[in-house]
Amino acid sequence: MNRPDIRRLPKRANPQEAQAKLLDAMHSKTLSTEKVGLAEALGRVLAKDAYSNINIPSYDKTFIDGYAINPKDTAGASIAKPAVFNVVGKLFPADYPTNAAVANGEAIYVACGAPIPKGAASTVKVEETRLKDDKIEVLREIKSGEGIIPLGDDVKQDTIILKKGQVLRPQDIGLLASIGLAEAEVFKKPTIAILSGGDELIKQCKKDPSKIPNNYALVVAGLASELGASAVLKGIMPDDLVQVQAKIGEVLKDADIVVTIGGTSVGMKDFVPDAINNLGQPGVVVQGVSLRPGAVSGFGIVNGKPVVMLPGHIGSCIAGFYLFAVPLIRLFCGLPADGLLPCLTAEFSEAVASGPQFRFLLLHLHRAEGKLLAEQVEGGSSTLTTIVKSNGYSIIPPHTTLAKGKSVDVHLFGKLELAQII
Amino acid sequence: MNRPDIRRLPKRANPQEAQAKLLDAMHSKTLSTEKVGLAEALGRVLAKDAYSNINIPSYDKTFIDGYAINPKDTAGASIAKPAVFNVVGKLFPADYPTNAAVANGEAIYVACGAPIPKGAASTVKVEETRLKDDKIEVLREIKSGEGIIPLGDDVKQDTIILKKGQVLRPQDIGLLASIGLAEAEVFKKPTIAILSGGDELIKQCKKDPSKIPNNYALVVAGLASELGASAVLKGIMPDDLVQVQAKIGEVLKDADIVVTIGGTSVGMKDFVPDAINNLGQPGVVVQGVSLRPGAVSGFGIVNGKPVVMLPGHIGSCIAGFYLFAVPLIRLFCGLPADGLLPCLTAEFSEAVASGPQFRFLLLHLHRAEGKLLAEQVEGGSSTLTTIVKSNGYSIIPPHTTLAKGKSVDVHLFGKLELAQII
Repeated sequence: MNRPDIRRLPKRANPQEAQAKLLDAMHSKTLSTEKVGLAEALGRVLAKDAYSNINIPSYDKTFIDGYAINPKDTAGASIAKPAVFNVVGKLFPADYPTNAAVANGEAIYVACGAPIPKGAASTVKVEETRLKDDKIEVLREIKSGEGIIPLGDDVKQDTIILKKGQVLRPQDIGLLASIGLAEAEVFKKPTIAILSGGDELIKQCKKDPSKIPNNYALVVAGLASELGASAVLKGIMPDDLVQVQAKIGEVLKDADIVVTIGGTSVGMKDFVPDAINNLGQPGVVVQGVSLRPGAVSGFGIVNGKPVVMLPGHIGSCIAGFYLFAVPLIRLFCGLPADGLLPCLTAEFSEAVASGPQFRFLLLHLHRAEGKLLAEQVEGGSSTLTTIVKSNGYSIIPPHTTLAKGKSVDVHLFGKLELAQII
Repeated sequence: MNRPDIRRLPKRANPQEAQAKLLDAMHSKTLSTEKVGLAEALGRVLAKDAYSNINIPSYDKTFIDGYAINPKDTAGASIAKPAVFNVVGKLFPADYPTNAAVANGEAIYVACGAPIPKGAASTVKVEETRLKDDKIEVLREIKSGEGIIPLGDDVKQDTIILKKGQVLRPQDIGLLASIGLAEAEVFKKPTIAILSGGDELIKQCKKDPSKIPNNYALVVAGLASELGASAVLKGIMPDDLVQVQAKIGEVLKDADIVVTIGGTSVGMKDFVPDAINNLGQPGVVVQGVSLRPGAVSGFGIVNGKPVVMLPGHIGSCIAGFYLFAVPLIRLFCGLPADGLLPCLTAEFSEAVASGPQFRFLLLHLHRAEGKLLAEQVEGGSSTLTTIVKSNGYSIIPPHTTLAKGKSVDVHLFGKLELAQII
């Protein structure tokens, strides 16, 4: 029966299969790269293997403040019978390259990092020597190579030092600088354009332009940028098919990923799926998944670009975001999509159950009694405070009950969550 | 005996006591705050409790697409004997505020988020109704409040919604926007000025200005900014007491924290401690700690500002950074200093031992066989690749051996590490 007040959703898809369908469709996308200065490369994803064509250090240097000597000169040395050296010079790190040399029975003072003079093969700590007149005494046998960082000890020439796909951490940036690079080639950040639906938001905007009515878009943008995307709020779609279609079509031009919030359900003014279908082939691919909350999320593909449809209730919106948008962002960032998010193993503090659908379980992960506990956060899927009280989630299969104390992999919402799980 | 080639370190301090001394000295610092736009507030620390002076939602609204009715009208309803309603109107979210009302036996179509008309106290899903001619039939008794998000369900008026000290996550930003804020008052980012020591760096600079010689400073800056500081590379101090003193004095003017790298040991050109002592009272407070690596790290205080002295070997430098600079940064960010870093519990994959000093153990944390394993990363304290292979650390007390399989709290270097522990 055709009813003006209802549009039936297609049969709800299995969420895992729906996600796989999206990733399969996007898997062959060619990722653009760009060169950025090292300081700006922090947190970006390396786009190709980094090779070193130099050794680090590029010459033998001393690890300690002390004296460079030929260890053979210490043969048989002891406290009772020290080896005695004439000090014939000083070397500092800035003295590289040097022609300085020691002959038998000679030592050169070397400050930490200084090059090793010719004829020397070890350094001995200042504190291990005795000063006697102008000479120094060494009180034990010194092994060859003692106190020295040999050429190539840190990095060997012609080796890969960092692999493509590495998220560049501070120490990686330092390593790239050490091989003489000033920039890194990284994957471009994917652009994610976020559209919010609803005349009521436009009305709020007009009433008080200083306020931010589409605050859920702000949440999605924050989560997306924390994951490495460049998120852009693209305003509000009025409740009108033609205008929804125009807005989505417009933002599709520049963005890598489009995300809509609201307007995906069966209400009279839920125009997003129709708009996507009108914009191009194949249009909507998945509308509705067997996931609670998040059932009315889905995605379409228009001109090869993904449009993720998120529900208007914040709890459902977040569930759909993690199901569809997060793996896309990771894939487009050059990371393994199936790795998803940082994942910590915790114990359920109470028993939890799913029901006939997959369950998107909001969790509060915290430390107690020396272990990580995952506590289910109760609250309607329409309340933002429920998300504020949570720091991660887990997806539980249908018809499943998990006992208290059962181990669970909790996906954190993002890296910022970690700052407070201490 | 006075030797020109050696300056004895004071007795090495217990690292925990040394850290406590630094934090005690800085504990009463007044933190500055600033107002920033909500999008820029991501990851910042809230400087005062956020109150809501409104209810969210500010009126009863429907949670579903359906019909608003008086539930009393469904008394005794069943499939066999449905309750019948005349549909007398439509309401959408943008229709708030509304004067719409239902009388006995009347229903109004409500789209998800719409206000509840007068006379109604429940909503029933479209899918649960039957359309018959122009009327709808409801096939069961509906409870009062069904399908409704009551006023204040998300946020109650005059309650604290976020506490001072909260690291603002995307969902927190969304919550602040929902109570009508466009900006947040956050603690100012502490400025950390980083100075590298050594004529050899100046020489490298001159040789090839396109390269970054002080790459360890880049590592420290990256770690500091990931933790929430504003890190500034302040160049290189030549190996000259007067110039070291001038450089430190200059950067002390603007920075909240000064960090020096190199020049803290007993070498002939290790001028940093003397420079700090010359700059003002109390000067150097701790020089040398019983920690391996990291033994020659320490700190001074000049005009109430901390100067952290880090050793020149990268492994030692990192150890000193986590011991002294990280808790300072957290404190100055408005966070609990003793919480330090994100900490994960893992199992040692091999036995580890300390020795006569505390041991700063570099660890590679990874998942295997469904659990987190902490593997000790071998390598000299002078090799950056050792840090690159690690993602966290643990400090082991002196004279301690920990068996394979023993549980250990691993402090991650920073949030970026988490992206790859999946």
